[in-house]
Amino acid sequence: MGDPAGIGGEILLKAWRPDGPKLLALDDPQRLAQLAARLNLSVPIRRVSSASEAMHVTDALAVLPVLLAARVEPGQPNPANAMAITTSISRAVALAKAKSVGGVVTNPISKAVLYAAGFPHPGHTEFLGKLTGGVPVMMLASPMLRVVPVTVHVSLRRALDSLTSAAIVATARITAASLRRDFGIANPRLAIAGLNPHAGEGGALGEEELTLIAPAMEVLRAEGMDVSGPWPPDTMFTPAAREKYDAAICMYHDQALIPLKTLDVTHGVNVTLGLSIVRTSPDHGTAFDIAGSGRADPASLIAALSLAAEIAARRLEE
Amino acid sequence: MGDPAGIGGEILLKAWRPDGPKLLALDDPQRLAQLAARLNLSVPIRRVSSASEAMHVTDALAVLPVLLAARVEPGQPNPANAMAITTSISRAVALAKAKSVGGVVTNPISKAVLYAAGFPHPGHTEFLGKLTGGVPVMMLASPMLRVVPVTVHVSLRRALDSLTSAAIVATARITAASLRRDFGIANPRLAIAGLNPHAGEGGALGEEELTLIAPAMEVLRAEGMDVSGPWPPDTMFTPAAREKYDAAICMYHDQALIPLKTLDVTHGVNVTLGLSIVRTSPDHGTAFDIAGSGRADPASLIAALSLAAEIAARRLEE
Repeated sequence: MGDPAGIGGEILLKAWRPDGPKLLALDDPQRLAQLAARLNLSVPIRRVSSASEAMHVTDALAVLPVLLAARVEPGQPNPANAMAITTSISRAVALAKAKSVGGVVTNPISKAVLYAAGFPHPGHTEFLGKLTGGVPVMMLASPMLRVVPVTVHVSLRRALDSLTSAAIVATARITAASLRRDFGIANPRLAIAGLNPHAGEGGALGEEELTLIAPAMEVLRAEGMDVSGPWPPDTMFTPAAREKYDAAICMYHDQALIPLKTLDVTHGVNVTLGLSIVRTSPDHGTAFDIAGSGRADPASLIAALSLAAEIAARRLEE
Repeated sequence: MGDPAGIGGEILLKAWRPDGPKLLALDDPQRLAQLAARLNLSVPIRRVSSASEAMHVTDALAVLPVLLAARVEPGQPNPANAMAITTSISRAVALAKAKSVGGVVTNPISKAVLYAAGFPHPGHTEFLGKLTGGVPVMMLASPMLRVVPVTVHVSLRRALDSLTSAAIVATARITAASLRRDFGIANPRLAIAGLNPHAGEGGALGEEELTLIAPAMEVLRAEGMDVSGPWPPDTMFTPAAREKYDAAICMYHDQALIPLKTLDVTHGVNVTLGLSIVRTSPDHGTAFDIAGSGRADPASLIAALSLAAEIAARRLEE
């Protein structure tokens, strides 16, 4: 569901296709039907009572009801609906853990709304880590680039303070394992970004390449991993450079997300690696400012659904 | 000239066109003739003794001699030639200051080679600041984007420590003045980047947007400047976002250079703002690894020559 006051419902309705990946929405069927009517989207809504029942629904969007406590005003998030939002997430995870569904795709939530209702986790991804017992690692994947930041939602100063060789090694290991298992890449090639301009220029523009990144790369190479770098951050995302690796391990949030979103803002997908379940999500927020207007672009959710289906199929084969 | 052991000579020969911008090379005529023969480039070389003499040369590359002390081995920089490299720069600047030429385009140099020969400046741009008495500010310009980093060739940690409101204000002022004077933009629009992920999310992911960037923007707005931001760094370089500004003021080197080079690695030009003279340079290094091979791409130098000619023409009109 995501936050029902955001664009999640709209992009879900726009993403549904009779011949698309098999979907089971965990949402309020009545609000989806009303939203479809309001936006003039001809998507039939079918209330189901289990995931297996949803398997037989082909001519409608199957919805396992998660009822809202308060009426939804687009663009006006309401803490009264926080419980329904988190219930939607935890039930989806439970279905995935029970293998009743192949994976979970989450629509955007607003942390401020959940915090106001007492949500005790720093964010969506950490909540999923808690529910599954895994160590979540965020990958952003688009048709042009895959990036995995070692430090994520912290200030740039805290990212510098918290960057360690151990974190680089752990992130690279989880990324390589997922590229093999989930993306079908037998021998994944990882490009490791430098932290500083020109990757530190041998120490003249920063020491972390020598003190943190190179030692991490030695550990990874000793394990037989195909790692290259540390690359100067500004030239490692050119078309020629991107051909040489399957994923870039980045040192901080914007080093990863600037190139990804600059290259393709519409088809980026957030993939959570390191969990026992498959989880993807669109690479944008709740967009409260355009919610209810009918102007939301479902491209990222469609890409997230396809990628989740692809990964789930690969895990099933295995 | 740049470092004669790099690709500067090759891209100069490849960039020359009888109908291109009027060029005066400050270089060793013999080494250019030999290089042209070796690379099978049919560029006639004409030795001249002044800039005014070069004005009449249309069927050859005019070269004002700066003689090398040692024979050039491509890819093997030689401190014995450091004096010729710096002389080429200082003579070009002197010609520009005397208005004998419209501007200076510099080929890449290797700082290590100059340091070994006792060069006392941190880099090319600082040397130009010294020669002209200006406060150099680096802009990178491509057909898709103009970026100006507030902090430049320092470690990321030092960039954080040295970022101030005053530096943001000074950089934005010089940028706006140059967009008006050199780029012909009457009312320049500046996008100010945040420093932290999501531009700090109101303080949750870093304070600098509130303590440094917002106060700088207030000062700029009070001066009547059209500034917007602080923008989340990862979404400010998408095609839709780029339409809304003429230059992005960035907080650190890679925040500016990652999007620029990711979007277009071949046509980026380094423009030095804040000097009394016009100065551009290609947006790449000496490329010692491919020097002498004939594989160097002159696109960035060609773009640098065109942009210098364009800016010089605008200043002349004025």
